[in-house]
Amino acid sequence: MAYFDAASAAPLHPVARQALHASLDEGWADPARLYREGRRARLLLDAAREAAAEAVGCRPDELVFTSSGTRAVHSGVAGALAGRRRVGRHLIVSAVEHSSVLHAAEAHEADGGAVSRVAVDRAGAVTAQGYGAALRADTALACLQSANHEVGTVQPVAEVAEVCRAAGVPLLVDAAQSLGWGPVPGDWSLLAASAHKWGGPSGVGLLVVRKGVRFAARGPVDERESGRAPGFENIPAIVAAAASLRAVRAEADREAARLRELTERIRARVPGSVPDVEVVGDPERRLPGVVTFSCLYVDGEALLHELDRAGFSVSSGSSCTSSTLTPSHVLKAMGVLSEGNVRVSLPVGAAEEDVERFLRVLPRAVAGVREKLGAPVTGTATVTAADALVVDSLGKRCPIPVIELAKVIGDVPVGGTVRVLSDDEAARLDIPAWCEMRGQEYVGEEPADQGVAYLVRRLS
Amino acid sequence: MAYFDAASAAPLHPVARQALHASLDEGWADPARLYREGRRARLLLDAAREAAAEAVGCRPDELVFTSSGTRAVHSGVAGALAGRRRVGRHLIVSAVEHSSVLHAAEAHEADGGAVSRVAVDRAGAVTAQGYGAALRADTALACLQSANHEVGTVQPVAEVAEVCRAAGVPLLVDAAQSLGWGPVPGDWSLLAASAHKWGGPSGVGLLVVRKGVRFAARGPVDERESGRAPGFENIPAIVAAAASLRAVRAEADREAARLRELTERIRARVPGSVPDVEVVGDPERRLPGVVTFSCLYVDGEALLHELDRAGFSVSSGSSCTSSTLTPSHVLKAMGVLSEGNVRVSLPVGAAEEDVERFLRVLPRAVAGVREKLGAPVTGTATVTAADALVVDSLGKRCPIPVIELAKVIGDVPVGGTVRVLSDDEAARLDIPAWCEMRGQEYVGEEPADQGVAYLVRRLS
Repeated sequence: MAYFDAASAAPLHPVARQALHASLDEGWADPARLYREGRRARLLLDAAREAAAEAVGCRPDELVFTSSGTRAVHSGVAGALAGRRRVGRHLIVSAVEHSSVLHAAEAHEADGGAVSRVAVDRAGAVTAQGYGAALRADTALACLQSANHEVGTVQPVAEVAEVCRAAGVPLLVDAAQSLGWGPVPGDWSLLAASAHKWGGPSGVGLLVVRKGVRFAARGPVDERESGRAPGFENIPAIVAAAASLRAVRAEADREAARLRELTERIRARVPGSVPDVEVVGDPERRLPGVVTFSCLYVDGEALLHELDRAGFSVSSGSSCTSSTLTPSHVLKAMGVLSEGNVRVSLPVGAAEEDVERFLRVLPRAVAGVREKLGAPVTGTATVTAADALVVDSLGKRCPIPVIELAKVIGDVPVGGTVRVLSDDEAARLDIPAWCEMRGQEYVGEEPADQGVAYLVRRLS
Repeated sequence: MAYFDAASAAPLHPVARQALHASLDEGWADPARLYREGRRARLLLDAAREAAAEAVGCRPDELVFTSSGTRAVHSGVAGALAGRRRVGRHLIVSAVEHSSVLHAAEAHEADGGAVSRVAVDRAGAVTAQGYGAALRADTALACLQSANHEVGTVQPVAEVAEVCRAAGVPLLVDAAQSLGWGPVPGDWSLLAASAHKWGGPSGVGLLVVRKGVRFAARGPVDERESGRAPGFENIPAIVAAAASLRAVRAEADREAARLRELTERIRARVPGSVPDVEVVGDPERRLPGVVTFSCLYVDGEALLHELDRAGFSVSSGSSCTSSTLTPSHVLKAMGVLSEGNVRVSLPVGAAEEDVERFLRVLPRAVAGVREKLGAPVTGTATVTAADALVVDSLGKRCPIPVIELAKVIGDVPVGGTVRVLSDDEAARLDIPAWCEMRGQEYVGEEPADQGVAYLVRRLS
């Protein structure tokens, strides 16, 4: 078995396990109490806070522990917005943030606030100019991830922080994907992170609020964690989180170089061994362990099952695998193919031979899924107008509409048009992406009696 | 060392430790994923939910895991209020709820809602009539603890639930102190609890929302835990919490009887061995392991230090020990003495010989503190009016004002009055309580040039 989904959750680091076991005996009591057990718990909590602050590069009194990275993001966004309520209620996020940031933005909108979503390029990166253009006089807060969780692209945080700083707007960085690899550069104002992404236990997040940043915690609070994270501190898990952060940092440079080489093999070799594949995300400015690609004419869920049967645990941003009907908002914002999407995120210590085996297994797995899907295509192609061939894919789910389009494109004269009728949300993303990959022209979409008609013109 | 503060946090139960260790290996992955590690995590989570629901007496789909008991209370109160917003914005709580409930009520008030606080009797209990009288046409929610965390008094939850049910108002029960001993009786609507109170790990709370109860989760949510508790589930801790709840329940009846006998010894023998002590809380309807008493003329913090040095970890509701300047809101609401307050809360398995040693050590510890405080009394008593002796205790903290009052009362003729000048908030509670204990008349308070003047008439 090879677990290649570290960007979702990393297995517990041995140092975290050891620290957790030790502090279960020493750190279970209430650190607010004056008696022996309470004082011991307080000492552990203080030491963990100092270790975590050192790794982040902040003062210990700027850092509080929360119950998850999601909670850190929710509390950080809400508190920073409330602290600058007098300035205004405008929030800036990138279009490719983690769902926790986007959910916080949606809650802010539902509460009457305004949100701007900064677009990304085809590699998934924002620009400082993009943030600069979004800033307004009433902007209370801007948010940006340090690196993208789905495609691994590293964001220009320091540049964006500078633009925000010049406008007097605080920048909150979601550092969940990168904090294990190193401190976040630049003059940011708030930072959130999640321990189980770097091999710490579940149930621990970090929220850092720099001195001088206006912050007003929302909702009921108590005297714990500087009034920013109510409820009894989970000290054994906090101790384990801080210890493992220090441990992964000690080996970060060496391990980053090793994983980068392994993901580079996947980036380089998959397009040669799997036909019709698009590797997405920035090839240079990227996380060491993450590589993502999309396979045309493939059902993401079926491919994940094939890979799971072959002993590989990976995830996918394809609509076909999630509980919702819409494809990954990240792939959508990038404008890249979402069907047959696979994210490989290697955990610290991932074995070279597992990566090699993955590269051997993948072509067969993709071919198997394509074969199953290719056979039962039942779309009826009929000429209904002078120059328009119509493919009726109503009721069919990704990747069938694209497969049907590919099957008929050869029947259209060069310069002629195909209308693909589809009621699958993924088609809106995947048909333009297919056109880009195949050198055909995506003309646009039109409402149809049922679903939507996507127009494609044959160029070659 | 004897740890007698289980009502704050119980040491980890051996079953919890074992379950935690096992599930660190099996339960770290994302339960929303389709691959092997994700499916294993999901199985563990589902099994834990079923076990916890069985112990609560609810359906598994009515129960979600939160990151703490405090979070369960905050989310439960906010969600239930939002769900019935159309009915109105009136919330009922008892005056002796845990701070997490009171903080949620304060946040509701700050947001424009109305709150009624139901009074308690001298034993700390509410009545169904008290809740009945507080109900209004616009009441959205009522909250009541199953048992009080400071004095152990069990509340009439079933009766209050019946009154609420008749009015169509949901009742949220904070079951933090009692869930380890048994299910909460009665027809309640929502329930919150905290695993580290029953010997589970920190970082796990329960929120139960009965089917049919209107509930609208507040703040950003995600797809986890039925949309009621966002963020990655802490499955190893959840598994440990559920396993230890089952384990403590298996031994609950036997252990409750044993602890009840031990706390009964303290209730019975402390008033005989320590002069001027008041045992507080209901003598019958009470938690098995909790007993609370207050010692006149004693500084709570000094007494806790003495007991800590003698090897006992207990807590106190005296103002002197908390980080705030006000004494426990529970003791205040009960109208009992708050100075020199000690709460003994025995953990499961507490040793009889430790309790016996506590009973031997306590009289010396109290006498030592009193001796230290009694010596340096410097209050100047001067007759300034025909019938009024004035004790100037300005700038002096609890229990000095009461000590000075006690010293001069003998100099006042029967029927005469003493004015105690004090700027310590605890005096407002402790001077009337002293009068009640000593059979003197508490006349009332008046504003003074500095602080407040408390008037006491000598009756005997």
